[in-house]
Amino acid sequence: MMTTLEILQRAKAAAPALSAVSTEQKNEALRAMAESLLAHTDGILEENSKDMEDAKGRLSDAMMDRLLLNEERLSGMADGIRDVCELPDPVGHVLEEIRRPNGLVIQKVTVPMGVIAVIYESRPNVTSDVSALCLKSGSACILRTGRDAFRTANAIAEALKEALALVGLTPDLIQLIQDTSRESANELMQARDYVDLLIPRGGAGLIKNCVENATVNVIQTGTGICHVYVDGSADPEMAVNIVENAKASRPSVCNAEEVCLVHRDIAEEFLPALKQRLVDDRMAAGLTPVELRLDERAMKIIPGTAAGPDDFDTEFLDYILAVGIVDSAEEAIAHIAEHSTGHSESIVTGEPETAELFLRCVDSAAVYVNASTRFTDGGEFGLGCEIGISTQKMHARGPMGLEALTTYKYIIRGDGQCR
Amino acid sequence: MMTTLEILQRAKAAAPALSAVSTEQKNEALRAMAESLLAHTDGILEENSKDMEDAKGRLSDAMMDRLLLNEERLSGMADGIRDVCELPDPVGHVLEEIRRPNGLVIQKVTVPMGVIAVIYESRPNVTSDVSALCLKSGSACILRTGRDAFRTANAIAEALKEALALVGLTPDLIQLIQDTSRESANELMQARDYVDLLIPRGGAGLIKNCVENATVNVIQTGTGICHVYVDGSADPEMAVNIVENAKASRPSVCNAEEVCLVHRDIAEEFLPALKQRLVDDRMAAGLTPVELRLDERAMKIIPGTAAGPDDFDTEFLDYILAVGIVDSAEEAIAHIAEHSTGHSESIVTGEPETAELFLRCVDSAAVYVNASTRFTDGGEFGLGCEIGISTQKMHARGPMGLEALTTYKYIIRGDGQCR
Repeated sequence: MMTTLEILQRAKAAAPALSAVSTEQKNEALRAMAESLLAHTDGILEENSKDMEDAKGRLSDAMMDRLLLNEERLSGMADGIRDVCELPDPVGHVLEEIRRPNGLVIQKVTVPMGVIAVIYESRPNVTSDVSALCLKSGSACILRTGRDAFRTANAIAEALKEALALVGLTPDLIQLIQDTSRESANELMQARDYVDLLIPRGGAGLIKNCVENATVNVIQTGTGICHVYVDGSADPEMAVNIVENAKASRPSVCNAEEVCLVHRDIAEEFLPALKQRLVDDRMAAGLTPVELRLDERAMKIIPGTAAGPDDFDTEFLDYILAVGIVDSAEEAIAHIAEHSTGHSESIVTGEPETAELFLRCVDSAAVYVNASTRFTDGGEFGLGCEIGISTQKMHARGPMGLEALTTYKYIIRGDGQCR
Repeated sequence: MMTTLEILQRAKAAAPALSAVSTEQKNEALRAMAESLLAHTDGILEENSKDMEDAKGRLSDAMMDRLLLNEERLSGMADGIRDVCELPDPVGHVLEEIRRPNGLVIQKVTVPMGVIAVIYESRPNVTSDVSALCLKSGSACILRTGRDAFRTANAIAEALKEALALVGLTPDLIQLIQDTSRESANELMQARDYVDLLIPRGGAGLIKNCVENATVNVIQTGTGICHVYVDGSADPEMAVNIVENAKASRPSVCNAEEVCLVHRDIAEEFLPALKQRLVDDRMAAGLTPVELRLDERAMKIIPGTAAGPDDFDTEFLDYILAVGIVDSAEEAIAHIAEHSTGHSESIVTGEPETAELFLRCVDSAAVYVNASTRFTDGGEFGLGCEIGISTQKMHARGPMGLEALTTYKYIIRGDGQCR
């Protein structure tokens, strides 16, 4: 077993050569990676079923859903890698050229980040998405998953490394840390000499741990306490559709809604319809009903659980929705400013002015009018598969595609200039 | 005296309204700030002379030069603020518009960062530069300087706040932390609820402290162990000019050269000329001579101090230059990869291929051919005055102008789309 330090050293040593590899060679490697993934379908699914077996009883249904692989999902992962071939190479773009009066020619040119580390939990597609995006953007990647998903991730990583070797690139460009203990994560967070960028992907605990303990550069991703605000002027049918989609289409993901705020003027009409759709209709259809956690005012209109003090600050990642009544769009905006994690928020409204107010004042990565928060996703935004969704303001915000994985440098050509 | 927490709260409360202020209003405020600075010249210089008096004996000559204000420098600071008026407003640009097949219209729009904090040491212009750049880019700023420069900074900040009030903006947009103890810096570094971006400007110790202890987002700036590599094919006269300029024109700044690497083929010719220019000629002209710290091979060619083990890893910020001999451009590139802080490096060469190799392989924020490293500066790059020079790869690299102080958000307009 390679130590974490050896892995860091190998990734750092492998990275510089990749900046000289052509776009066509990188795409050839990506196609080989997609093929190798499919060629190893049986082996990968076998390792996944062992992980699933071990996880039984320890993980929630939603978390089990995150971990699960099947042929369809694996094939989706291969498609995701192939999609990256189609995307433009983000490296080597001259972003700006400045000619100075003294004759200096200054070019701002995109270059690879170098070594990108990702700490993640159980989603198997992270292994292939990160590997593909890092390769195309010219960086080596270091992957660190937890024990729940290790066998799956390892089988995927081995398939991808095999493909790199096939096309003549060093397999060291993709590194999976073999040690799933807390120590390896801590080592990675402190590896300033080796890691240019660390992206944690997972629950709030993981993110908090990275943000508080890392000395390497971190991009905070993914924690999504997403809000849908149903304005007084909303079309109630559209609002119910959006809230059901945002909450229940895949509750385990970060762009799922956790809080629904309802304008008092529409509450009497909207809330019974919401309860009908999210609870009664779903039960009748054999779907998991959504547990509604209601503030005091909502409790007076429909039955449900009384919301506790933390329910408006919790990423449930489950079939649970906090519901509150507000007196105005401004109150909704203020509530969001106080409780949101800055991921995605949506307003359902019939008034353009209110829509614009919401768009201007809500300071989150993605702000929607009359659409589900579930669209916050690299693929849905047309960026190709994403490495994560940034909820911070520095470097990148929202779904991070290839561009977010590069940096730039200034190249200055002179003929003896002194200042 | 306001506590640091009160200052954080005021800055956060003041920031949102600034995103609705027009470009013209912001420029009016900037012009008023420049005028107010000049109107308070006497008071500011008086406070500066108190700081200078106190600093005597405690600070090196180079550090005293950083702290010193005079009419010319103050007028330069006012000009710097006025220059920011001329720069385009970085907020509200639609960076991208994506129309999706499902009808969603996605816009990626630049928005202010929010609250930007800067911890700095003694340079008085930081107070006005940061205030001007933050205001124009729509963010509130929190300034934290040390005791050496506090009176100067406070006089400048008060003049700037007075100007904000004059044009009807809240003075809370510019905040100088009144407590110069270590505790206030630590409090700022941990203020995740209040600070969107922290930029330390100063020596290596300050930067290291921020990087290791901050939980807010930090941009690492300024530490510059900058290299000039004199290739075998260099024009020796050009090389001597560039090395003297890079080292001695202002040794206290981060873009000054600290290390000169010389190809063995030119060492016998170049080193005596270097010693003549940096030591003998400067002494004859009454200028401070440069102390040359030579590696073993250089010691055999010219007289000087034998370099100690740390001399190739030190930001001297003084009239000291480490000099070493290398066998090839590749060896110079490898030396730089190992010892550089990623700020600015230059090659002096007559061979275009060697120049391109150096430009491609040296992974620093600014990489030069045949020019002095002293040009790494927002003004010299045509960006207007800068908030700092980033030596990290995340978010911004090199001189950070207005653009580097913004972030973006995605605005998505739909008509009921669900995923």
